[in-house]
Amino acid sequence: MAGTAGHRHHVVVVGAGFGGLAAARALRDAPVDVTVLDARNHHTFQPLLYQVATAGLDGDDICFPIRGIFGRQRNARVRLGEVRDVDLDGRHLTMSDGTTLDYDDLVLAAGAVTNTFGIPGVEEHAFGLKSLGDAMAIRTHVLLRFEEADADPAKLTDGTLTVVIAGGGPTGVEMAGGLAELFSHVLRRDFPRLDVRAARVVLLEATDRLLGTFHPKLADDARRTLEAAGVEVLLERAVARVEPDAVVLTDGTTIPAATMVWAAGVRAHPLGETLGVELTKGGRVVVGDDLALPGRPEVHVVGDLAASPGPGSAGSDGAVAPLPQLAAVAIQGGHHAAAMIAGRLRGEPPRAFHYVDKGTMATIGRHDAVAQLPGGIRLKGPVGWLAWLVLHLVMLIGFRNRANVLVNWAWNYLTYDRASRIIPEREPAPFTQAPPGRATR
Amino acid sequence: MAGTAGHRHHVVVVGAGFGGLAAARALRDAPVDVTVLDARNHHTFQPLLYQVATAGLDGDDICFPIRGIFGRQRNARVRLGEVRDVDLDGRHLTMSDGTTLDYDDLVLAAGAVTNTFGIPGVEEHAFGLKSLGDAMAIRTHVLLRFEEADADPAKLTDGTLTVVIAGGGPTGVEMAGGLAELFSHVLRRDFPRLDVRAARVVLLEATDRLLGTFHPKLADDARRTLEAAGVEVLLERAVARVEPDAVVLTDGTTIPAATMVWAAGVRAHPLGETLGVELTKGGRVVVGDDLALPGRPEVHVVGDLAASPGPGSAGSDGAVAPLPQLAAVAIQGGHHAAAMIAGRLRGEPPRAFHYVDKGTMATIGRHDAVAQLPGGIRLKGPVGWLAWLVLHLVMLIGFRNRANVLVNWAWNYLTYDRASRIIPEREPAPFTQAPPGRATR
Repeated sequence: MAGTAGHRHHVVVVGAGFGGLAAARALRDAPVDVTVLDARNHHTFQPLLYQVATAGLDGDDICFPIRGIFGRQRNARVRLGEVRDVDLDGRHLTMSDGTTLDYDDLVLAAGAVTNTFGIPGVEEHAFGLKSLGDAMAIRTHVLLRFEEADADPAKLTDGTLTVVIAGGGPTGVEMAGGLAELFSHVLRRDFPRLDVRAARVVLLEATDRLLGTFHPKLADDARRTLEAAGVEVLLERAVARVEPDAVVLTDGTTIPAATMVWAAGVRAHPLGETLGVELTKGGRVVVGDDLALPGRPEVHVVGDLAASPGPGSAGSDGAVAPLPQLAAVAIQGGHHAAAMIAGRLRGEPPRAFHYVDKGTMATIGRHDAVAQLPGGIRLKGPVGWLAWLVLHLVMLIGFRNRANVLVNWAWNYLTYDRASRIIPEREPAPFTQAPPGRATR
Repeated sequence: MAGTAGHRHHVVVVGAGFGGLAAARALRDAPVDVTVLDARNHHTFQPLLYQVATAGLDGDDICFPIRGIFGRQRNARVRLGEVRDVDLDGRHLTMSDGTTLDYDDLVLAAGAVTNTFGIPGVEEHAFGLKSLGDAMAIRTHVLLRFEEADADPAKLTDGTLTVVIAGGGPTGVEMAGGLAELFSHVLRRDFPRLDVRAARVVLLEATDRLLGTFHPKLADDARRTLEAAGVEVLLERAVARVEPDAVVLTDGTTIPAATMVWAAGVRAHPLGETLGVELTKGGRVVVGDDLALPGRPEVHVVGDLAASPGPGSAGSDGAVAPLPQLAAVAIQGGHHAAAMIAGRLRGEPPRAFHYVDKGTMATIGRHDAVAQLPGGIRLKGPVGWLAWLVLHLVMLIGFRNRANVLVNWAWNYLTYDRASRIIPEREPAPFTQAPPGRATR
């Protein structure tokens, strides 16, 4: 069958996010062939997308060619493409180009997508923050609004320079802090004739506090820090609809705003819906405590796509609250799935997945972050920020040692490697004209 | 009147390429206000575009936000926009958004665009290499063709993996060398199951030698180096037409090729045609030896848009051969224009522009370049490559001290600066859907 290499046990991993990468890499010494499928040619380091959206990092700094990640893993191959359909009984996938791919073991790690909750105008007029394309689109859009206002002072007060962020979780908080910083430090200098103080960052949260999964003290600290940076934090406010130039709240308030960032929630990737298995409310696939589909030990689901059973007791409906949709859950889930696959080949029975909480953190500004570590340890301020910085650098450097032009060149020269094999979501337009014959091939 | 700051002498510089930047920066201590106009928000370091196209550098490594370049120049302002029309008698510009901009002095430095010479299919099916969008489009297109061939072995031999480059000047030579390197070193490792040797790089040149402006010995050396790297160099071949999947030569040969890069020539930016003044065959504006328009000492034209009089004797038609369209000519021309503007304010008469030849170079491979310096000095091989490397690093570092993620962050932190304010030519698609209400504002 197309895509299988030889006759070894064939593991197909769908998705090269944290969960899929962890599973595929953990199988490097197993007696299997691994095929990693992804619709993009790069892994996106999603925790730092907000930095790209706020112009703090280049897109290529946080995106890594999947082929480069597996370049030295002899039993792995990479394939670009989208999965249209999974035949669980026939044990094969159908790709969007019509080709099929057989598997002996399957790891589904397709992740999550932005959840608009069906609120009118969100899909048409708001930006998500789940992909490099999202982040670049936000950055481009906001910078162009400043150019507009610089050319026409009337736009200073009509919402052109207002960004509304829906969702007070870590993504919304980090986005708000990053934008406030971009406005007050960078754009104020770039646009010396513009009164950048007129630019607004509004953070909306439907509940009565930011960072619902953090300790209330940390959440309060985050709120104070954001407000000191100029962010308007509005709690207990929900979005009724989004218009091209304004955000309308359920209490009737209208906020003129040319930019809306939707960080209010995610749902599991629609691939889950094609499986014909039990899903939770957010579209997550219900799995057993070994992360396999019930009755199908050859199919594991990990990361944001899975409703991994949490450690808590069963709720009133008998269900156990699933683990949160965090990178750490995905990574540990990927490792567990790989261990189960390798163990089953050795005849070992499956084991339950136990998530080890490593803590959660959110950065707020130039030297401020909140971190909640296991054992009730809470960090904030510069210490929290330093912890955040070190953690993310270590995680990033795990993929690639990024360097400046000189070091980059030296690296290319010594290792025959290249840093920039990123395929952007859409091809930029050539200077003269987009070659349509090529773009549609 | 819009856009002028105060009542000082107002100099408008059109284009933030090498010529425009040089002129605007050289006016930093002059008693004038300077407005820099560009259709993009970034300067593109064109000599390294081929590195972006061949995935050696990130786009952001060679693009620099114009506002950042002029952040500390108090008498300069930057405006994003396209010039639709110049009223030389009325001394004002009309922008594409309909607004007008008065000037006392004008520096036109709009540069050059790809010249298709009207050859059928070039505009529709070939890629230029004049902008970041061009370079990213080539990279994306070529990488996707390798993904295609990896999924379908039939595409190995049908031209999917063939890149034809038209034009054996420095751009074509560098592009061919960079692609050969990308194929043989990087993609061979990225696609271990693909016989990358089947990928072809074909370099077409209409004359009987490469690098027509270099000494024949250097051109021969370049050709041998390229051929050793696997490039097929075809001399005295011209393109009759380009089809979606093939390039047809005037001798009837058809080369199946999914990718064609058009590096066969440039013409001056079409802005020149709107002026109603004398143009050369390539659309370049005829200027006096002081680089001003004849009879209009307040309008200078520099860089690729200008036919700057060269040092040679007049030809048979009485015309002096114009200077070549090189970065060094543009930079020196920009400096000259600035000096003329400042001098005229002091009542000094215009002086003739004298171009100082600093040499030309082209890189060919991993440690090979040819360089032709003044005084008949010719460098090649690793020595030429080292000269090329040092020169370009020095030029790049003149704009910005680029650094890796860590250094980048440290830099942002210490200087309140950001590296990534690039607006790509077209906004990438958000993950869910492009917000059409926003993109068209």
